[in-house]
Amino acid sequence: MPYIPLNESLPGITGLLDYRKDTALPIRELTQILLRGESTLSEGERELIATVVSYGNDCVFCTAAHTAAADHLLLEKETAEKAKKDPSHAPVSHKMKSLLEIARAVQASGKNVTSAMVENARTAGATDREIHDTVLIAALFCLYNRYVDGLASVTPSDPAFYERLAVILSEKGYLPSANRYAGLTK
Amino acid sequence: MPYIPLNESLPGITGLLDYRKDTALPIRELTQILLRGESTLSEGERELIATVVSYGNDCVFCTAAHTAAADHLLLEKETAEKAKKDPSHAPVSHKMKSLLEIARAVQASGKNVTSAMVENARTAGATDREIHDTVLIAALFCLYNRYVDGLASVTPSDPAFYERLAVILSEKGYLPSANRYAGLTK
Repeated sequence: MPYIPLNESLPGITGLLDYRKDTALPIRELTQILLRGESTLSEGERELIATVVSYGNDCVFCTAAHTAAADHLLLEKETAEKAKKDPSHAPVSHKMKSLLEIARAVQASGKNVTSAMVENARTAGATDREIHDTVLIAALFCLYNRYVDGLASVTPSDPAFYERLAVILSEKGYLPSANRYAGLTK
Repeated sequence: MPYIPLNESLPGITGLLDYRKDTALPIRELTQILLRGESTLSEGERELIATVVSYGNDCVFCTAAHTAAADHLLLEKETAEKAKKDPSHAPVSHKMKSLLEIARAVQASGKNVTSAMVENARTAGATDREIHDTVLIAALFCLYNRYVDGLASVTPSDPAFYERLAVILSEKGYLPSANRYAGLTK
């Protein structure tokens, strides 16, 4: 049960973004730019960063939501599942492995990112912008994970919920829209 | 030395917000709403939350910047210094002690916030909105601290730098403006 009164038909982050819409808007805009805006990382790759960080923070809602979004964008379920457990053995490029390693460091602490990790990413072809965005996406999901769990928002147990949410996130993105969550909870 | 090329005259978060201005804007807007917008918590109290979280994350730049901002707004240096070390013995209201305890929990993990902590805050007079905002401010500074340290931005050692920054943050707030940081680094 959430620590503050939230709309019961909007579990997880959705109820929090509905609770205070003025703070929700810049959070949504930042997420849209980072995860759906122009980038040399694919949308699926960026959802993998969100997934790996949420898993590291043990945020069940965000992990399930972004695993489903990554699966939907990558058209398979193997990559996100393996990346969560051990990015170095996931079926992704060497560049993505090195960026996911940086993301996992950021999840624990910004200070855990080493120049060797950054050098490794550069050797694998990562650009300054990709390194920047990996750190900022990881930092953003440290915000989300704490927002969702710090107020004890509801975590649905039905996998179908996350599949419906993934379709919204993949096809509509993160910006607010009318009837955005229609049919999300059934 | 930062992991990506940043404007050398803009240390800490200032260079990062300059590096990618499209992502900086919603980060600035969110901060402005939470730390300077309408609230039943004073600006000084909200800067204390930022300070305590940054201290918990061992982010030297953010701790110094928000300590200086809190000092500037509270017109004394004792409260922030004591709150960083132990909020329960800081010269703040019982409500603020309970909210700072929640913020410290969020700093480590959203899951560390307990219903007893929330109940304690309510008994001390905290509203739903104050509890919500405390969690979200704490989560936001977990983003900032990781952004600043994850890219190894420069941390000035001169206390006068943070005093100049505190004047900007206290008097101009967090939104972008022309010549915002003029004279910040001397």
